[in-house]
Amino acid sequence: VKQKDPRTHLREANAPGTKLSATAAAPTRVAILGFGTVGSSVAQLISAQKKNGVRITHVFNRGVARKRVAWMSRDVIWTERFEDLLSPEVDVIIELVGNVELAHRWISRALIAGKHVITANKQLIARHGGELVALAQQHSCRIAYGAAVGGVVPVIPAILEGLAADSFHRISGILNGTCNYVLSRMERARIAMPEAIAEAQVRGYTESDPTSDLDGEDAAAKLVILAAIAMQRLITPEQVRRQSIRTIDPVDFDYARMIGCTIRQISYAELNGKHLIAAVQPALVALDSPFAVAHGSDNLIAVYGKHSGRLLFAGAGAGGDPTAVAVLSDLLAIRRGHSPAAHNAMSTTEVRGDLGSRHYLRFVVKDRPGIVAGIAAVLARYRINIDALMQSSGHPAARLPFVITTEKSPADKVADAVKEIAKARYHVQPPLNLPVLDSL
Amino acid sequence: VKQKDPRTHLREANAPGTKLSATAAAPTRVAILGFGTVGSSVAQLISAQKKNGVRITHVFNRGVARKRVAWMSRDVIWTERFEDLLSPEVDVIIELVGNVELAHRWISRALIAGKHVITANKQLIARHGGELVALAQQHSCRIAYGAAVGGVVPVIPAILEGLAADSFHRISGILNGTCNYVLSRMERARIAMPEAIAEAQVRGYTESDPTSDLDGEDAAAKLVILAAIAMQRLITPEQVRRQSIRTIDPVDFDYARMIGCTIRQISYAELNGKHLIAAVQPALVALDSPFAVAHGSDNLIAVYGKHSGRLLFAGAGAGGDPTAVAVLSDLLAIRRGHSPAAHNAMSTTEVRGDLGSRHYLRFVVKDRPGIVAGIAAVLARYRINIDALMQSSGHPAARLPFVITTEKSPADKVADAVKEIAKARYHVQPPLNLPVLDSL
Repeated sequence: VKQKDPRTHLREANAPGTKLSATAAAPTRVAILGFGTVGSSVAQLISAQKKNGVRITHVFNRGVARKRVAWMSRDVIWTERFEDLLSPEVDVIIELVGNVELAHRWISRALIAGKHVITANKQLIARHGGELVALAQQHSCRIAYGAAVGGVVPVIPAILEGLAADSFHRISGILNGTCNYVLSRMERARIAMPEAIAEAQVRGYTESDPTSDLDGEDAAAKLVILAAIAMQRLITPEQVRRQSIRTIDPVDFDYARMIGCTIRQISYAELNGKHLIAAVQPALVALDSPFAVAHGSDNLIAVYGKHSGRLLFAGAGAGGDPTAVAVLSDLLAIRRGHSPAAHNAMSTTEVRGDLGSRHYLRFVVKDRPGIVAGIAAVLARYRINIDALMQSSGHPAARLPFVITTEKSPADKVADAVKEIAKARYHVQPPLNLPVLDSL
Repeated sequence: VKQKDPRTHLREANAPGTKLSATAAAPTRVAILGFGTVGSSVAQLISAQKKNGVRITHVFNRGVARKRVAWMSRDVIWTERFEDLLSPEVDVIIELVGNVELAHRWISRALIAGKHVITANKQLIARHGGELVALAQQHSCRIAYGAAVGGVVPVIPAILEGLAADSFHRISGILNGTCNYVLSRMERARIAMPEAIAEAQVRGYTESDPTSDLDGEDAAAKLVILAAIAMQRLITPEQVRRQSIRTIDPVDFDYARMIGCTIRQISYAELNGKHLIAAVQPALVALDSPFAVAHGSDNLIAVYGKHSGRLLFAGAGAGGDPTAVAVLSDLLAIRRGHSPAAHNAMSTTEVRGDLGSRHYLRFVVKDRPGIVAGIAAVLARYRINIDALMQSSGHPAARLPFVITTEKSPADKVADAVKEIAKARYHVQPPLNLPVLDSL
């Protein structure tokens, strides 16, 4: 008799109205599509748990010969032919190839062939989630993508199960572990960004090219998925306003601290009438907020419910093992007959508006009289009120950083004003403009 | 045709292996047992959502005449006879009476009669959870108690769904909103405890008698439920080591801050071989930890997974509306044929051991020479190393508070030493002994 996780067992036994799928009694047979870091961690986790009722039948990878490992069962078929995974011997395909176009094609074929699919591919789901869920429904299959958002942080079941009775109007979060590692290391160790990025690479938190992390593409895809799940709004990653964290300097943490803040890459989405506000950018957050407390590669997601108020979820946002837990949890849910997917027929939503926050403007100038007066004049012309001016001592006059914070103002107006200010000759580097999100 | 929540709809349509229970197409008929603050909030939430497929058929309360409200449907039967709720017209009974003995009897009868049950009664589930889940299974019903732990924080589905693939060895958290309100108010507003308690009462966070909150009974029950869900360990509330927060003085926040800490009521449980460490007590936590960042009546739950690392969940721990969201979310899960309960046949576990943390010892003395030397001698005899001695100026010599922190030491040994120290005549009030949990 197969043993099962006692929690799983209980819920099956305790759900009389639920007809278990055919795979629940027999082992669920799984093919792993892509055997990199996460694929290998998933296989190890499945192999280590004797009682979970899951058996790996196939591993697909290009050049699969060099991927073979001795700790896998001898029965596993190692293959370079995707078609082998469509065998009747396979119930579920776990897609971990990363590439969007290939994954799209393969997952579509898998669903059409009647295979359940689990994927951690956030760019794929952000772009084609609705379509793939519809395809799964047509073919009586399920598709799950819990690992695509927040790493191991179980925000999808939390919203869909535990908070099903509420509706959500705002999401804010730290959705990229690499950026959080880089910024929190700069804050704590007082190092420059290239050094912090190199550390993140050594720790395996980022690819050799960290562009997608630093510039917000990765977080934007996750924000798109969260907006679909929590707010039933469909937007594309391209609609999300993005700003890179690359322009943050260690001195910005000093100035931020003077107003009780630090800096994090913040993703947020908020209902704005029929439209959606959606952005991924470095922002100032209050030092005593949960966002400031998130260190290392942690992810943190806040959702704001009409009745529930603010709910927070946090945990490891990167790493093979945590991601493997998310993938295998999706698999166990499918095995129980639950369907974790959340995209539903939704119409596209326009992205418009912003939070109208305070702004942090940092200038690095070759000092001469009249600079502040000139900047103040431009801001006044745009009807932007100055909240504070900060200039700490100890910087060379040839490369002097100082900061102006504004009162609450529309982001577009501030951007226009900064663009005009940036035309002056005294700038040693372009001005930095960050929102102050200290009431998140 | 009945409209359903689009998320629910999707998951049903997308779960081909799941036979929907008979109640899914027709409205789910619900009886509310106990019409106080939460009962009323649940009824309002159900009534406000036209599309959730839930209909209230009965409201039970003692002296029900005075409970009648005009905004409920005229079809609702208001009753003082529990038996009316066992009518074939009722699918689910929502128990919100609070009392353990009555609720135990009524819920047992409801399950035997084939009714699904939802309860927010933490003391009941902590004491009889296993038995009631078994009874539900026998009678092909479900029992759900998501609202019994963490208020609206969806920690149960998060652990059971999103983290099903991992196992957990430690839980720590802020499980009582009243205590957190009181302590965080004392910290921020520099007020004494009685004043903070009065404020909590005005805001409706606590009963007229806050004993169960302040002394840890409420949190202990929640910890028992969490240990059952996350670690499959069965203990009773009486086994949990408890210490009241009543002895905390505003001066303790000043001394705590000197070592980078603040004070919260912390509940923790940790596997200790075959045994369990389990305690609810005021403790020092690091100022830059998520525990310190939890303010007001928020709850915060951290679970530590073998593969996932630390996961955090936080949100409103009290209030009618958030609790109503948790209750109705359980109802929607039952409606979908999911079974959220988690207690399973578990053997009882012994509670033994402690975290062996540093300790904060605060003394208030009538000053005279030799006091510190005497205390140090006792600690030395118990082989407890002193980490720091703190005495701030500005206190009267007749009532002088000072603090000794110890290095990591077994809690029992520290308790014994403090008991011996407490015998001296110079104490103006009993010594305070708190663990320093700054690495949670």
